[in-house]
Amino acid sequence: MSVAVSGPHNVLVPRIEAELLRWIGTGETLMELVCRDALFPSGKLLRPILCVESARAVGGDTDAVLSFAAGIECLHVASLIHDDIVDQDPIRRGRASSAENYGISEALLAGDGLSMAGHAAMLSAGTADRVLDAARLVVDGMRHMCRAMLRETEIREDLTCGVPTALEVIRGKTAALISAACQAGALLAGATPQQAASLGRYGELLGMAFQIRDDLLPYTAQEQQTGKPALSDVANRHPTLPVLLAYEAADEAGRHRLTGAFRDDVDPATAHREVLDIITRTGAVVLAAQRAHEYLDTARAALTAIPHPGRLAELAASVTHQGAACPCT
Amino acid sequence: MSVAVSGPHNVLVPRIEAELLRWIGTGETLMELVCRDALFPSGKLLRPILCVESARAVGGDTDAVLSFAAGIECLHVASLIHDDIVDQDPIRRGRASSAENYGISEALLAGDGLSMAGHAAMLSAGTADRVLDAARLVVDGMRHMCRAMLRETEIREDLTCGVPTALEVIRGKTAALISAACQAGALLAGATPQQAASLGRYGELLGMAFQIRDDLLPYTAQEQQTGKPALSDVANRHPTLPVLLAYEAADEAGRHRLTGAFRDDVDPATAHREVLDIITRTGAVVLAAQRAHEYLDTARAALTAIPHPGRLAELAASVTHQGAACPCT
Repeated sequence: MSVAVSGPHNVLVPRIEAELLRWIGTGETLMELVCRDALFPSGKLLRPILCVESARAVGGDTDAVLSFAAGIECLHVASLIHDDIVDQDPIRRGRASSAENYGISEALLAGDGLSMAGHAAMLSAGTADRVLDAARLVVDGMRHMCRAMLRETEIREDLTCGVPTALEVIRGKTAALISAACQAGALLAGATPQQAASLGRYGELLGMAFQIRDDLLPYTAQEQQTGKPALSDVANRHPTLPVLLAYEAADEAGRHRLTGAFRDDVDPATAHREVLDIITRTGAVVLAAQRAHEYLDTARAALTAIPHPGRLAELAASVTHQGAACPCT
Repeated sequence: MSVAVSGPHNVLVPRIEAELLRWIGTGETLMELVCRDALFPSGKLLRPILCVESARAVGGDTDAVLSFAAGIECLHVASLIHDDIVDQDPIRRGRASSAENYGISEALLAGDGLSMAGHAAMLSAGTADRVLDAARLVVDGMRHMCRAMLRETEIREDLTCGVPTALEVIRGKTAALISAACQAGALLAGATPQQAASLGRYGELLGMAFQIRDDLLPYTAQEQQTGKPALSDVANRHPTLPVLLAYEAADEAGRHRLTGAFRDDVDPATAHREVLDIITRTGAVVLAAQRAHEYLDTARAALTAIPHPGRLAELAASVTHQGAACPCT
């Protein structure tokens, strides 16, 4: 995901980064090298920031959730390392992906090691009951993610899989872990079950919006903003939401062109031009962006009963107002 | 690992299998299909059996550790799925490996999902403090394993890496998780720290012996007993313990022949014949088997202060007396 996040959360970044380093180590083994290279320079740190801010939103303390939050980032980045193997993506965050840089086997095993470092970080501290509840939530989120990533390989090239399937994949692939990060942060800080559930809901809706924006980037932004080639989704024949909305809205001729572009023998640049044209003509870009807006509105509404919702609301707003990534504004 | 385990532990098998099914599900999603296919027909279930028997050895109850034990098996099998991708092994337990059967991407993601199912199972039940301590141990064991698997890719083809490096790889790749399984089972059952440490030590030593026996199988057993082609280690140019002991014991000419066999352009069957000949001539097979014996003796000695060590001692003995796998007996 490459939608930018701004706002007052940046003060957390160095603290989360220090915690990440503490868990992966600063030595020179191949494991530490590949992990450090995948984690740094760090991305938006959206999930750990949300975990910490959710704790603070119910009156909790940053220190008490920092290692847990760093653990979630490790799990997330481990999934990116594996995702780049699956998609054969040579670029991640504007740099060579782990698989490209170190080899597929090395990236696979380093991803496994980083995932385990994430579990270790999560289980490392806090009240046993709370840590256990929070870790269970994150593990459940990760299980959803794995299922969705596998489901995504099944619908490759399949333009008839339908918008609900695309939304299910987004929910599992992105929203589930973001939701778990928020709910876990709240639980670690002693939130009531209702507060934790609301923050989980907020995270899920925010995650839906983020992934839809991310799926839109190849059709709305320059490559340097996405950090990965704009052609990746099309090259992998991923029927993302904008593509499926276009397929739904297109006439017979449009569908025929989309299907043609999604055939394996079409080169990615040509396919991307075709898809971009149909997505724009059918209004699918605007339709997808509207859905993202709706998710963000509902996400903010989920914060109603949260004692200190300020930063989380700002975070959601910062997504809405990023013009470059949003063709609606 | 393919060394057989016999003894009175078989009564646990159906209970562990039922628990595994409960965690991976019996539906027909691709995730459940790949996981079920990797878990069943089940292997020796050594790790979950050791986890349960370690709990019982300190007076604990089977039911209280069953889901945790099943979780460890999920983590273990997930690592096998990924290992077969790394080694490009088409065969596992005498059947097509997951990567061979379903594709590399599918196997990679299913391995991730199975690993998360394992974490979920481990965190699912019991006293929070104990579950957390036990899960931390297993996660640490898995971190060791990932590092060792990555280290193994670094020493591929390197016959000069030395016997201590091979032992370090064995310790991380196999002994660490077996040790954690024993210690975790004990902790879950309320063992004293001393008892838990002793059982952890027992598991580590048993694990060392098991892996050495496994590394010996290509040179002592028929292929059908190993469940994977005898050529796999040589085809992957893994400098296993018997090979390194042979290299250490060989004269200049023998080392030259071994180095020649480990070059990439030699076909695996020819390489295997060469290696087998030198390993036998130098007495490395007997040397490695002796080391395994020593580890098993020390493992049994670690049980001295354990209240009910019977089954664990039998389990260690059952390894010793498997003539087919052991050239010493």
